[in-house]
Amino acid sequence: MKATENIAVLLIHCPDRVGILAVVTEFINQHKGNILYLDQYVNREEKVFFMRVEWDLTSFQIPRDKISEYFNTLIACRFEMNYRIHFSDQKPRMAIFVSKMSHCLFDLLSRHAAGEWNVDIPLIISNHPDMESVANMFGIAYHVFPITKENKAQQELLQIKLLEEHQIDFCVLARYMQVLSGDFIAHYPDRIINIHHSFLPAFAGAKPYHAAHERGVKIIGATSHYVTDDLDAGPIIEQDVTHITHKNNVEDLIKKGRDLEKIVLSRAVEKHIDRKILAYKNRTVVFQ
Amino acid sequence: MKATENIAVLLIHCPDRVGILAVVTEFINQHKGNILYLDQYVNREEKVFFMRVEWDLTSFQIPRDKISEYFNTLIACRFEMNYRIHFSDQKPRMAIFVSKMSHCLFDLLSRHAAGEWNVDIPLIISNHPDMESVANMFGIAYHVFPITKENKAQQELLQIKLLEEHQIDFCVLARYMQVLSGDFIAHYPDRIINIHHSFLPAFAGAKPYHAAHERGVKIIGATSHYVTDDLDAGPIIEQDVTHITHKNNVEDLIKKGRDLEKIVLSRAVEKHIDRKILAYKNRTVVFQ
Amino acid sequence: MKATENIAVLLIHCPDRVGILAVVTEFINQHKGNILYLDQYVNREEKVFFMRVEWDLTSFQIPRDKISEYFNTLIACRFEMNYRIHFSDQKPRMAIFVSKMSHCLFDLLSRHAAGEWNVDIPLIISNHPDMESVANMFGIAYHVFPITKENKAQQELLQIKLLEEHQIDFCVLARYMQVLSGDFIAHYPDRIINIHHSFLPAFAGAKPYHAAHERGVKIIGATSHYVTDDLDAGPIIEQDVTHITHKNNVEDLIKKGRDLEKIVLSRAVEKHIDRKILAYKNRTVVFQ
Amino acid sequence: MKATENIAVLLIHCPDRVGILAVVTEFINQHKGNILYLDQYVNREEKVFFMRVEWDLTSFQIPRDKISEYFNTLIACRFEMNYRIHFSDQKPRMAIFVSKMSHCLFDLLSRHAAGEWNVDIPLIISNHPDMESVANMFGIAYHVFPITKENKAQQELLQIKLLEEHQIDFCVLARYMQVLSGDFIAHYPDRIINIHHSFLPAFAGAKPYHAAHERGVKIIGATSHYVTDDLDAGPIIEQDVTHITHKNNVEDLIKKGRDLEKIVLSRAVEKHIDRKILAYKNRTVVFQ
Repeated sequence: MKATENIAVLLIHCPDRVGILAVVTEFINQHKGNILYLDQYVNREEKVFFMRVEWDLTSFQIPRDKISEYFNTLIACRFEMNYRIHFSDQKPRMAIFVSKMSHCLFDLLSRHAAGEWNVDIPLIISNHPDMESVANMFGIAYHVFPITKENKAQQELLQIKLLEEHQIDFCVLARYMQVLSGDFIAHYPDRIINIHHSFLPAFAGAKPYHAAHERGVKIIGATSHYVTDDLDAGPIIEQDVTHITHKNNVEDLIKKGRDLEKIVLSRAVEKHIDRKILAYKNRTVVFQ
Repeated sequence: MKATENIAVLLIHCPDRVGILAVVTEFINQHKGNILYLDQYVNREEKVFFMRVEWDLTSFQIPRDKISEYFNTLIACRFEMNYRIHFSDQKPRMAIFVSKMSHCLFDLLSRHAAGEWNVDIPLIISNHPDMESVANMFGIAYHVFPITKENKAQQELLQIKLLEEHQIDFCVLARYMQVLSGDFIAHYPDRIINIHHSFLPAFAGAKPYHAAHERGVKIIGATSHYVTDDLDAGPIIEQDVTHITHKNNVEDLIKKGRDLEKIVLSRAVEKHIDRKILAYKNRTVVFQ
Repeated sequence: MKATENIAVLLIHCPDRVGILAVVTEFINQHKGNILYLDQYVNREEKVFFMRVEWDLTSFQIPRDKISEYFNTLIACRFEMNYRIHFSDQKPRMAIFVSKMSHCLFDLLSRHAAGEWNVDIPLIISNHPDMESVANMFGIAYHVFPITKENKAQQELLQIKLLEEHQIDFCVLARYMQVLSGDFIAHYPDRIINIHHSFLPAFAGAKPYHAAHERGVKIIGATSHYVTDDLDAGPIIEQDVTHITHKNNVEDLIKKGRDLEKIVLSRAVEKHIDRKILAYKNRTVVFQ
Repeated sequence: MKATENIAVLLIHCPDRVGILAVVTEFINQHKGNILYLDQYVNREEKVFFMRVEWDLTSFQIPRDKISEYFNTLIACRFEMNYRIHFSDQKPRMAIFVSKMSHCLFDLLSRHAAGEWNVDIPLIISNHPDMESVANMFGIAYHVFPITKENKAQQELLQIKLLEEHQIDFCVLARYMQVLSGDFIAHYPDRIINIHHSFLPAFAGAKPYHAAHERGVKIIGATSHYVTDDLDAGPIIEQDVTHITHKNNVEDLIKKGRDLEKIVLSRAVEKHIDRKILAYKNRTVVFQ
């Protein structure tokens, strides 16, 4: 989904009923929309219908700024739908939070610099000055907010102010070693993506590689998830693992883990940018 | 390592000191042993040396029943070694414990029937009659010990008696849905292999697939480990995972998990039979 | 999809046009069918629409033996569809071909014996007597057809006769070490599933593990595919790999490969039984 | 292995004979070397012994510039050894070759910038100007050598001259879309690392993702290998794969493949920098 294309993305969830899929695809087809991708899923236990559809707007007969209104009136109300509509030329704006480690930051910025993602990155926020040189390499503004127990609430307010000034849509915690407060999180529900360096729910909290080594596991992992009030317990977006052996010490785990972390985080960010994720009851539906 | 071969396997761990590797390999070489495999590992944090060496006894000049004594006198004492010597023609004797699910049982018995493993399986123990037909297919004695809260201690005593009568070396819990008592476990330290249907330490205890589905993880796993007094917390031997999506319900996880469980359990059993595992401080060294 | 359920499965492919999805789902909904699973995919390069839909027939208003006729008249003709309809109570009948190795055979028969699959296995065909004991364990008829260059055509005719007498729907080559003739294959187009012990297209033909070892690869694999006239070149259903190292000799590869082969073959067989595969232009669409 | 440490690495291969391991470890131990890592492997079919040993030189009694001579005189001659000795403070010098794609280049340069690797990267060579901005970001000299059929031999001579001026030890082809001549390769035997975007030997040559899509495989891969005269047929260092489905078009494969390529290439480069690879008869021994 490139910014130069003229595409709409519709994400829906609602109580499952007969005919929803037919009604939605007809809405698009009869007004001359050309469906490019469609993925739907029905959670039969909870009787909930989920859908993501992407269509070309070139010949679509409903004016773009009326689509949401028409869809709401004609369909969404009838089916008690929760829905969001996005357009490909609305580039989301993303802020990166980082502390002292560069591997995730480099991976995110490299993909952005290579033009892989339809996203703007106006700024990077850190609690340490260490990563400023990396930000400079990529020409992105770097803001340091040192955090202490005393100033945390105040600093978070300043961070939020900065994010709002830059109209940030979502935040990516690229190994940001601070726990965000509930107040902060409430500003960006399902819009803060974290990478945790374990296969959650194992080894939540601090020093997961040390804990993994201590426990003697034979795999290590990384988990990207939306941040919620419960530490490391938000909706999981993506996970991956790699095998280790008894020969690997903690430093080996940290090193092997870096590759996992950056890939797992970047995959999650990409899906968020492409509006492929729907968080629902602390789980995610990740469309194809 | 086949029963028809004339091979010795030596497993060692001891405080790390200069020259251990040289001394042990010389002991074998100078008495005309032909080293077939050697794997060693030094845990540098804890300064412990681990080694497994396999050698052909055909021309070995120390009589087989004297090897342990000579090794002990000449080397082990000097280096404060813990060691075990096994011989390829001593087939270990394995008991399988099972409840109502057949997939792990079939996998173990199929490998045994195909002659893949140098092991004897004199008997299968269950708390239910369901798997008797499978045992019969493979011609293996099947003993049912129904377990209630009241009779558990008594039944375990009878199980142990039966295991001792059949000179069982180690037990494999092939989805045996009973928690063994500490007394039982004490009879077979590091010699009871369990398969748990999650990537431990996540989802220990009952119903891990339900818990995994509830948590919304994107991978599920299986873990084989030695049983200790702490439930699902013993030394891990082998782990593997597979990816799932939001589309998979609990039944899908159970189904996908079956393949993981049987392969992960059989790999652990094979390594145990081949004397490739050394449990140390609640972790395992798994030699190649 | 169990035999006891009353379910229809419809598989479609046709030129992509606007509204197909809506029309098909409406056909099911308006006649009171309850859609259980739906997966669709549009190949945009070739402009082909693929769909699999599973629905509960309990309240469906079109009599079961008229469904195909009605669907054809009302929809399929209009959209130039290729389609197949299956019913859950029509158990497919599967024949297994095997030579001398038991691991795939055991895995297939174990799953069948455990009731995992909605399939009948009336017979096993082999060019060697070796696996008869395994067939006997599971109570399945075992037919030996020794093959020589001279008698091959004649033996294949007898095999086909036997398959037809038993109304076999599809064949599974569980490490059957004979190349089937084009004539044989023509009787079962996209209905003979083979397991090849490499990640095709690498190492097609004989002795792939030897070739893999010689080439010094760091992964080995297994591939299940439908058999066509081109040896090891038919539509691929499923593939998986495992990592190896320089320490693994050919025997190690063969051993590690066995686990891959049996799992990859069984996964393919399961998807075939569940009517989830649509072969198209030497590729497969594998529905979820 | 950091430059600040005082460590020697010895790599050996020779005909397998009794006692080699003991003799080498004694040589190090008796002169007060402290062994940090040791990995050995015997190829029993070809009767060849391989070994890598890393030891701390702090108390080693043989002067560093005499170690090779002493080792040669006392041991290597006796056992017909091929051996190499490296020291941790001799930073290898690496040149990167790139064409127009940035993902591997970014990954290599990011790791270098983060100080992950004990290597110098004095220059980048390309046949196109496109990646100059990336080189500039990281402050590394960028040299463009446009290649045509006519000027290729001449340009390669200039490239070699440049590499020699900068005392380059090894070259990394980070998606360099030119085939190097045999003459060029002869200057850097087993010292040019390439990344090929398929699981070799499948899909050697041009456009492997197109070929993979055409063939309908269910996995795609990447392979890092040393470059030899045979295109894409040199000793394999590292391979990895990822699963795909029928829903993935060629663009999806290219995108998914990028992550594989960069990780697989970087892992190979890291092992080369750490002197963990021994190429032997078109295969690699990759030590731990």
